[in-house]
Amino acid sequence: MFIAMNRFQVVPEKAEEFERIWAERETHLDGVPGFVRFALLRNGGGHGTPPNPGEYVSHSTWESREAFFAWANSDAFKKGHAQGSLMGILEGPPTVTLYDAVLEQDA
Amino acid sequence: MFIAMNRFQVVPEKAEEFERIWAERETHLDGVPGFVRFALLRNGGGHGTPPNPGEYVSHSTWESREAFFAWANSDAFKKGHAQGSLMGILEGPPTVTLYDAVLEQDA
Repeated sequence: MFIAMNRFQVVPEKAEEFERIWAERETHLDGVPGFVRFALLRNGGGHGTPPNPGEYVSHSTWESREAFFAWANSDAFKKGHAQGSLMGILEGPPTVTLYDAVLEQDA
Repeated sequence: MFIAMNRFQVVPEKAEEFERIWAERETHLDGVPGFVRFALLRNGGGHGTPPNPGEYVSHSTWESREAFFAWANSDAFKKGHAQGSLMGILEGPPTVTLYDAVLEQDA
């Protein structure tokens, strides 16, 4: 399993607009080989710390690193990323971090 | 859906030992109500940036925030966290971040 996370710091007053843009977006992920699942996550705080308003993570799970990179170099990726500008909504550029699963357990 | 991530910065030379400790651990997650899945993730780099050696994320998915907090206050949680010291392996205390899913799409 392979997980790609893209972290966005949104101007807090624009959080609702950010969520709306994502909800209206076509992900172009249906039927992409090796795609497992996608979620848009909103920071809900930590261990005794309050939520960081405006922090979001676009979180996608893949069968393998190869499947992710094949998609990242595909036309489906270009289509998915050509929609809806986030200009003026983000406090800075998003940061991508990629993760390889070392251990896995399902319910 | 609700995701809890606990980020560990491991002394790079101790990464193998850290993975071994986790592999030998009993998670005590079987049958916990609302538990969906668990993974131990290893940083695999970013968009054109090299991996951060020693960064790991313990990543658990839950049906809801309520299910996560019920587990975090349970005996199963205490048992799962009473095993294996990470003393001398971490560069600092782990940081927990909790996330609420705003959007979800499965393959």
